[in-house]
Amino acid sequence: MRVLLVGAGGVGTAVTRIAARRDFFEHMVVADYDEDRARAAVAGVPRAGGPDPAGTDGGTAGGGRFSAARVDASDEAAVRELLARERCDVLLNATDPRFVMPLFRASLAAGAHYLDMAMSLSRPHPRRPYEECGVKLGDEQFALAEDWSESGRVALVGMGVEPGLSDVFARHAADELFDSIEEVGVRDGANLTVEGHDFAPSFSIWTTIEECLNPPVVFETGRGWFTTPPFSEPEVFDFPEGIGPVECVNVEHEEVLLIPRWVDADRVTFKYGLGSDFVNTLRVLHQIGLDRTEPVTVRGADGPVRVSPRDVVAACLPDPATLGDRMRGKTCAGTWVKGVRDGRPREVYLYHVVDNEWSMREYGSQAVVWQTAVNPVVALELLATGAWSGTGILGPEAFEARPFLDLLTEYGTPWGMREQ
Amino acid sequence: MRVLLVGAGGVGTAVTRIAARRDFFEHMVVADYDEDRARAAVAGVPRAGGPDPAGTDGGTAGGGRFSAARVDASDEAAVRELLARERCDVLLNATDPRFVMPLFRASLAAGAHYLDMAMSLSRPHPRRPYEECGVKLGDEQFALAEDWSESGRVALVGMGVEPGLSDVFARHAADELFDSIEEVGVRDGANLTVEGHDFAPSFSIWTTIEECLNPPVVFETGRGWFTTPPFSEPEVFDFPEGIGPVECVNVEHEEVLLIPRWVDADRVTFKYGLGSDFVNTLRVLHQIGLDRTEPVTVRGADGPVRVSPRDVVAACLPDPATLGDRMRGKTCAGTWVKGVRDGRPREVYLYHVVDNEWSMREYGSQAVVWQTAVNPVVALELLATGAWSGTGILGPEAFEARPFLDLLTEYGTPWGMREQ
Repeated sequence: MRVLLVGAGGVGTAVTRIAARRDFFEHMVVADYDEDRARAAVAGVPRAGGPDPAGTDGGTAGGGRFSAARVDASDEAAVRELLARERCDVLLNATDPRFVMPLFRASLAAGAHYLDMAMSLSRPHPRRPYEECGVKLGDEQFALAEDWSESGRVALVGMGVEPGLSDVFARHAADELFDSIEEVGVRDGANLTVEGHDFAPSFSIWTTIEECLNPPVVFETGRGWFTTPPFSEPEVFDFPEGIGPVECVNVEHEEVLLIPRWVDADRVTFKYGLGSDFVNTLRVLHQIGLDRTEPVTVRGADGPVRVSPRDVVAACLPDPATLGDRMRGKTCAGTWVKGVRDGRPREVYLYHVVDNEWSMREYGSQAVVWQTAVNPVVALELLATGAWSGTGILGPEAFEARPFLDLLTEYGTPWGMREQ
Repeated sequence: MRVLLVGAGGVGTAVTRIAARRDFFEHMVVADYDEDRARAAVAGVPRAGGPDPAGTDGGTAGGGRFSAARVDASDEAAVRELLARERCDVLLNATDPRFVMPLFRASLAAGAHYLDMAMSLSRPHPRRPYEECGVKLGDEQFALAEDWSESGRVALVGMGVEPGLSDVFARHAADELFDSIEEVGVRDGANLTVEGHDFAPSFSIWTTIEECLNPPVVFETGRGWFTTPPFSEPEVFDFPEGIGPVECVNVEHEEVLLIPRWVDADRVTFKYGLGSDFVNTLRVLHQIGLDRTEPVTVRGADGPVRVSPRDVVAACLPDPATLGDRMRGKTCAGTWVKGVRDGRPREVYLYHVVDNEWSMREYGSQAVVWQTAVNPVVALELLATGAWSGTGILGPEAFEARPFLDLLTEYGTPWGMREQ
């Protein structure tokens, strides 16, 4: 298997470090808009004799299995050419969700498989944004479902940790733990702190704003998908392994769009443990309009310039990928399932916890970024070995869960289950 | 008297509308970085037959007493030349405090009098910012005190409403209402709301951030000037004329630096009725670093650009000068004084309230902007008639208060006093 990884940010860099320890693939091209960033990721890959921070091997590393390239993820033709030139079987998208569509179309055109960790963006309903869906997450991708089916290739969408592992948990619950499911509720929480920063999000603020300020989507059998106002239905969820109770609120997330397509459940929700301080911060940004992506005109050094306020917010904050050294605590992703087994009510929480201290020591990557990155590598390995196979656009829950969960454990990062 | 007004924003425009009704000056040149803005201010001046919004008189109006010019307020030489070319006796600075020093120096060099409504900016103490003063508001200006004294011209600094009228009130209290003063506490509050906006500051957000997030300064006899953390010593102050109780907090303001130079008081403070929502917003902006003025690098349409985060915040919000039509309520500026008169304790609040409905109807200017603008016009008239005279750098409290307060009432905008 030859892989084109697009995006050498925090997640992409962690992907290279995790993949370097596995032998299921032949070659991985690491491509980024900023070629230096791609080269740095390649140079940091562990190899016989340790990493090569100076990049003296000319951009290949890890026994020559990695190489760096420059590509503009928004340039579909350039991505297609790169896939062809490098004879890649699969494109792994580790960029902002803004670049999903060009990368998705380029893969289809080039006859390559495709994996991403976030789906194409939503647009709120023009008149009833907090009641009805407009364009949903992934709609633009699923519009090409027939083309993908005909291509004989698989587009495995939403294959990070959330969406991704959370969807695998839902499928596992449906297959092995429940006879019928009342609610699947993905619940995400952490107790991470960053030394020296009052406010330092552990994940891309661009994406965090996008998912937290868009109208949250909920699925109910009979009613289908609908939306609510931001931060709706707050609840305190008790997270395992010492994280403890965190206030969670509804957030727009891919699982709610994916799970009902393959798993029978009366209700599907996603709640994020933002905590009240973070919710307050997001509310203020929204009130001022600093969450907006449409550019505003501002005085620059050489006259007026146009910038997106959300990009300015991101530029003011530290890059989450660089915070690992000063971060303390654990992050938990998981799926809470309520239903019936053998005629009796049952409730479980299937979860995966990463301790930042461990991920920094083992991989030099901070916990949230590492937890996102490990899952698509496991999925690539399942596709490479044929343990997972299929054609068309598929979510993680379209595949048997057991092989994934077993291989994840083999990667040294086991999952857990709490009966409640 | 020939006046050079620099700055045709909300306050500058209101200055032209107020001055147009008075005959103490011969000519007013309205200069701005954006000449269109200066022309619009001039064209909007009421004249025989009404205003001239199309500017068809070629940039003069109000019986030829106003004309427009372009000037960069940061270009000292250009301002000096303009003063000379237009034979102006006085420069009235209605720009951001960033431009105080070049305008102040240009006036000195040109032999013109100078008035402003905010003083040169402070810089926090490098090690103990919330305990000790670094560079104080106005320090850079007072460093030129000797030059101004020798020039025979007056630099009347801090002559808006706050600082300005609030300082006049302090002098009036010292002269006519108290034998000794324990505390002079300037207190500013409003009940203004803006239709259609959850968050729409009624005054320059650039200046509001500057004064609210800098360490607040306090004066005490014996101890001198010192600082506290932002938003310190919250108190609820009951504002008159139906505004009612508002939570006020310490804020860095010029009165604390000016009043002790000319008025005997054991303690001088400034508290601003921000309200808890506004304090929360400012805290969040500060936590993210969006209050910063040093530029950050952001992706622009044609590659990376450098912008100041605070300018981006301002660009996201509506221009306060344009909000008058959708604004409701009143704004109150005033000075609370506690002390002794005839051996008995006394407490008074001297205040000036502007109802937005009135200022919009009478002058087409929103209340906060109009209230700031009327005071320097009154001061100019006192200087023109000789009722006020002096040389050197002087605050409003360096002059007798009575002529100012009487003329303000003659302008149709009376002040009030509450014995408490």
